Amino acid sequence: MAKNLKIGLIGLGRIGQIHLTNLINHIPGAEVIIASDVSPQSHEFALKAGVPRVTFEAEEVLNHPDVEAVIICSPTPFHVPYTVQAARAKKHIFCEKPLDTSIEAILSAKSAVEENGVKLMLGFNRRFDVNFSNIQKVVEAGGIGEPHILRITSRDPNPPSLEYLRSSGGIFLDMSIHDFDMARFITGSEVKEVFVKGDALINPAIKDFGDIDTAVIVLTFENGAIGVIDNSRKAVYGYDQRLEIFGSKGMANADNNKLDNVTIYDDKAGHSALTQPFFLERYEQAYRVCLKTFIQTIQEDKPSPVDVHDGLMATVIGIAAQKSLNEGRTVSIEEVLDLSTIGLNL
Amino acid sequence: MAKNLKIGLIGLGRIGQIHLTNLINHIPGAEVIIASDVSPQSHEFALKAGVPRVTFEAEEVLNHPDVEAVIICSPTPFHVPYTVQAARAKKHIFCEKPLDTSIEAILSAKSAVEENGVKLMLGFNRRFDVNFSNIQKVVEAGGIGEPHILRITSRDPNPPSLEYLRSSGGIFLDMSIHDFDMARFITGSEVKEVFVKGDALINPAIKDFGDIDTAVIVLTFENGAIGVIDNSRKAVYGYDQRLEIFGSKGMANADNNKLDNVTIYDDKAGHSALTQPFFLERYEQAYRVCLKTFIQTIQEDKPSPVDVHDGLMATVIGIAAQKSLNEGRTVSIEEVLDLSTIGLNL
Amino acid sequence: MAKNLKIGLIGLGRIGQIHLTNLINHIPGAEVIIASDVSPQSHEFALKAGVPRVTFEAEEVLNHPDVEAVIICSPTPFHVPYTVQAARAKKHIFCEKPLDTSIEAILSAKSAVEENGVKLMLGFNRRFDVNFSNIQKVVEAGGIGEPHILRITSRDPNPPSLEYLRSSGGIFLDMSIHDFDMARFITGSEVKEVFVKGDALINPAIKDFGDIDTAVIVLTFENGAIGVIDNSRKAVYGYDQRLEIFGSKGMANADNNKLDNVTIYDDKAGHSALTQPFFLERYEQAYRVCLKTFIQTIQEDKPSPVDVHDGLMATVIGIAAQKSLNEGRTVSIEEVLDLSTIGLNL
Amino acid sequence: MAKNLKIGLIGLGRIGQIHLTNLINHIPGAEVIIASDVSPQSHEFALKAGVPRVTFEAEEVLNHPDVEAVIICSPTPFHVPYTVQAARAKKHIFCEKPLDTSIEAILSAKSAVEENGVKLMLGFNRRFDVNFSNIQKVVEAGGIGEPHILRITSRDPNPPSLEYLRSSGGIFLDMSIHDFDMARFITGSEVKEVFVKGDALINPAIKDFGDIDTAVIVLTFENGAIGVIDNSRKAVYGYDQRLEIFGSKGMANADNNKLDNVTIYDDKAGHSALTQPFFLERYEQAYRVCLKTFIQTIQEDKPSPVDVHDGLMATVIGIAAQKSLNEGRTVSIEEVLDLSTIGLNL
Repeated sequence: MAKNLKIGLIGLGRIGQIHLTNLINHIPGAEVIIASDVSPQSHEFALKAGVPRVTFEAEEVLNHPDVEAVIICSPTPFHVPYTVQAARAKKHIFCEKPLDTSIEAILSAKSAVEENGVKLMLGFNRRFDVNFSNIQKVVEAGGIGEPHILRITSRDPNPPSLEYLRSSGGIFLDMSIHDFDMARFITGSEVKEVFVKGDALINPAIKDFGDIDTAVIVLTFENGAIGVIDNSRKAVYGYDQRLEIFGSKGMANADNNKLDNVTIYDDKAGHSALTQPFFLERYEQAYRVCLKTFIQTIQEDKPSPVDVHDGLMATVIGIAAQKSLNEGRTVSIEEVLDLSTIGLNL
Repeated sequence: MAKNLKIGLIGLGRIGQIHLTNLINHIPGAEVIIASDVSPQSHEFALKAGVPRVTFEAEEVLNHPDVEAVIICSPTPFHVPYTVQAARAKKHIFCEKPLDTSIEAILSAKSAVEENGVKLMLGFNRRFDVNFSNIQKVVEAGGIGEPHILRITSRDPNPPSLEYLRSSGGIFLDMSIHDFDMARFITGSEVKEVFVKGDALINPAIKDFGDIDTAVIVLTFENGAIGVIDNSRKAVYGYDQRLEIFGSKGMANADNNKLDNVTIYDDKAGHSALTQPFFLERYEQAYRVCLKTFIQTIQEDKPSPVDVHDGLMATVIGIAAQKSLNEGRTVSIEEVLDLSTIGLNL
Repeated sequence: MAKNLKIGLIGLGRIGQIHLTNLINHIPGAEVIIASDVSPQSHEFALKAGVPRVTFEAEEVLNHPDVEAVIICSPTPFHVPYTVQAARAKKHIFCEKPLDTSIEAILSAKSAVEENGVKLMLGFNRRFDVNFSNIQKVVEAGGIGEPHILRITSRDPNPPSLEYLRSSGGIFLDMSIHDFDMARFITGSEVKEVFVKGDALINPAIKDFGDIDTAVIVLTFENGAIGVIDNSRKAVYGYDQRLEIFGSKGMANADNNKLDNVTIYDDKAGHSALTQPFFLERYEQAYRVCLKTFIQTIQEDKPSPVDVHDGLMATVIGIAAQKSLNEGRTVSIEEVLDLSTIGLNL
Repeated sequence: MAKNLKIGLIGLGRIGQIHLTNLINHIPGAEVIIASDVSPQSHEFALKAGVPRVTFEAEEVLNHPDVEAVIICSPTPFHVPYTVQAARAKKHIFCEKPLDTSIEAILSAKSAVEENGVKLMLGFNRRFDVNFSNIQKVVEAGGIGEPHILRITSRDPNPPSLEYLRSSGGIFLDMSIHDFDMARFITGSEVKEVFVKGDALINPAIKDFGDIDTAVIVLTFENGAIGVIDNSRKAVYGYDQRLEIFGSKGMANADNNKLDNVTIYDDKAGHSALTQPFFLERYEQAYRVCLKTFIQTIQEDKPSPVDVHDGLMATVIGIAAQKSLNEGRTVSIEEVLDLSTIGLNL
């Protein structure tokens, strides 16, 4: 059995606490030796969970001599700075999504990671959901032939607060970014063009800062497939996460997970359960598999399954989507990022 | 193409009218040249449908020189007498179920059919339902291996009138008889023993004449499989017709047909359609395929897929079921019918 | 009971024969007194079905003094000329879709119908499919609140021949036109803008004449909803016809009809039936309900549920879609048709 | 928040280890202060999990002055002796099922628990499965009206070893006992009579010691409902755990949990995932909820939701089932246990 991997955790907010709990209870081989957060309340959580050292200073984690890998769960603006510091300190990195909303910042993280020979894995946890990862395997194995049409439905149960939305970076970088990553993951192909039609149908007030809450996004892939994502910030029946890929030899379809498998029949209808309420329930297992995969990636010295390039492209698609919405036209990825600089030619 | 088969129809009640409509509209190769009924109202129906000759006398149909096959839709007590007459007149016979509730009567029909070399097909239309016939093919092809457990759920939407029930012959010969035939059809095996537990849970008044409206019936088959049928006279959500067969290599399950494939989701549940309301809707296609098969059986000179033996055994199982209910014990088929007389040895 | 409606049928090709069979077998109150077709073979079909008079001349049907309503199943180029003639002869009209591919022609039919005070109903039979019509009722009754996102999946099992495609008018007017009508029907709202992304992924040869076989179409509705249609000419698993509408209070989803409701489980998977193979099976009932509705519309003097305006708008959306594909941009309906001329202001 | 409950665990086999892991990782308020097992290997597991004291002697756990509740996971023959000792030592008790296979032994445990005023909860974990517990709530709330027919399907993926089976006590006390408890739980009614039809269809060798592997069990309930359980030791498609209850106002149906919600369609069929493989996966959550409920029962001083009476009745039904199989007749519960001794009158 591999020796334990010594981990430092930065950020003990909601997602940081989830990762910490999973590392301690469900992921053998991971040992959290230090955690940091600016809030004293969260320190208690980590100490109770058994983390031997808790600090206010992220730098202490980043530079701790025994730490082999850091897990960055800080607010987004700190993702790239901490990534760069961690890379220079020769720590492997697990970073929450999005890496950043600026392409330049992401590219600087990319350089730091590559120059220092460390691994970086991004927290696109949905890739590890059993429904979606099984479909990806089917597609990769040729089970549906050449992909023609990808359909993703991704609807939240409730919009976040106006306050949150104001600084969220917009629906594409805040919410659809998961779907952009999923689109690349399932098709195994890069996106070439983006077209968006959207509106603020749930809360028109968000138009004031240029945001929308309902979107239909058309993606064109390098391999010829066409994708369509529909997003909404409010589905009254719960968290709606479905995906379908249609190709020359068949179709694969992932339906929602429901709260139970019971149907009650009366003289009016059959009544079945709603979907799981939100991402914590739906992706509970995916969070664990995601972190386990990170630990294995390092222990078995394998390439990161979700690397800086994946983070870069998801953000680039998000920026193109915003541009398409603003300008009412199809936007090519090339307009947003000179692909030759990253060795791509779509 | 085969030459038209000239048909005489006896009985223009509900089921007779269904058969007539199907013969005229959906079954090429069938030509109804004469029909009979004791009621003058039904004559109009037949004449309008294009039957050239309508009579009050069944005998005129049975002895019509041009009639090649008769379809007997008269009340049950006339099934055997008409069958015997038709056989002697060398007409092929399609007869509604049950052939009779008396074993002796059925055996006399059997003799008449065999002696006169005509074909008889019984109207166990459910065998021609696409769900059930597809499962039968899977089982016959070995798709589930050796059958171990058969489950049939068969529930009506509403009980018939007390008046009807009083002369129905009891739930087993009136309603479960379809399930007994289905059990033999799906397993491809004879029933050896019957055990029944039942009660009048919907309308206790029917206990007065020894009937029940809720039953669980356990069947033991010659091939070792065990079957269970559950019957109810009243399912508020509609006609419930499901079947499952489980074996050494797998399981085949037929779910209900619903009124539509729509699901409406609100913030409480997903609401889906009820089942098709009753047998006319559920078995609409099966009635057609059943009659078409009869026509083909004669035109292509093939053995009848549902013959007198099938009618006999369904009735025998029904009689054994009633005996089991009355005596509170398992009843073997042999107790009801000396199987050696029909060349069987279970 | 209403007196029979005397009908003349023009065109005895595949769809004409379906309509004739339905009129004779399933639609009481309809009486086909004359039918026409240029091909002598089809005459036999009509005569055998009991049509008393069959002719080579459409004009004979259009001018027959006893004919009250005509059913036009001729090739598309004859739809408008026959409509205009029928209107002038004061016959009510049932016409197969599309009315025409030219807006001017459709407007001329519109004038003729209005000036002569006859009813015209277009054969958008899918509106009468039980799944889709039930969803329309739910939406109209406010069951899903304000519509936000409409999703239509419409995929054929196999592409038509190259020869057919060459003169089909393109995928939008030949195939998607049904979906355009469905989109307006379900949302109860006019389309304002169309955006298309498409390609010839199944047979690149059709690009030679400017056609595609795979399309994703984004529609913007007057009521603010956004729609997305995905079309393919080839789904190996059968005819794929699904629809979903999502709104402020819920979601309604229509799944495919399958060949049966059987699932076979082995040690690898659960195996269930494919979808119904093509439109004849899937829309068998819808064809009947559609024609029945036409007969009732006339007998009960009700407004046509699918009128010339519906035919016009479906064609206009199709033309806009082709323009969007050709020019790679969103096209507004106003660009294709000056809406003020038909009293609309989107 | 309640003060931690100090727990002693007896038995560190498979189920003991599951309970220990759940107590430590998922059940706040529970504190395992001592554990015992006869095997030294299991000691390491407990120590690593953080149990401060591990011993070979169950007695040390039972008499530990700080232990407030014991969790008994020892082999079945020790359940009653340890329960009696724990009760005398005034410890609350969670005991794995079955309590015992002897009625006398169970009654002695009952006395000890009652005399010493401690709580006992039995590990019938399936009651805490979300599907089944939701159905129980619907039934209790009158959602299906008066219960008429209960159907339980309970099939294992693979039979245990012959060695295990030889000392298992037979299918009824080893496997069906869960279904007997479920039947009482769902209907909220006592069982009056049992009838069994069964056979050794998977491995005839087990007939040598009087066991079977395939069973259909008919139960009659005090409230008039009739139940049917079908059991098999080998379902090639995975663990099959379904339940349906049908009543005067409707029906509730719990389908299996599948491995994922993906369907792959090719030109042959739609292929969906198998069921969860076995009880560890299917009842993973139920195990946690079950133990949490035990902790709450004590901390909030509530009556045990699964008490000695429940354990007694499940065993009594099992004994009656075996008697029915042996004697080929319906067996009443009263034949097995003089119900007046426990204050029941069925």
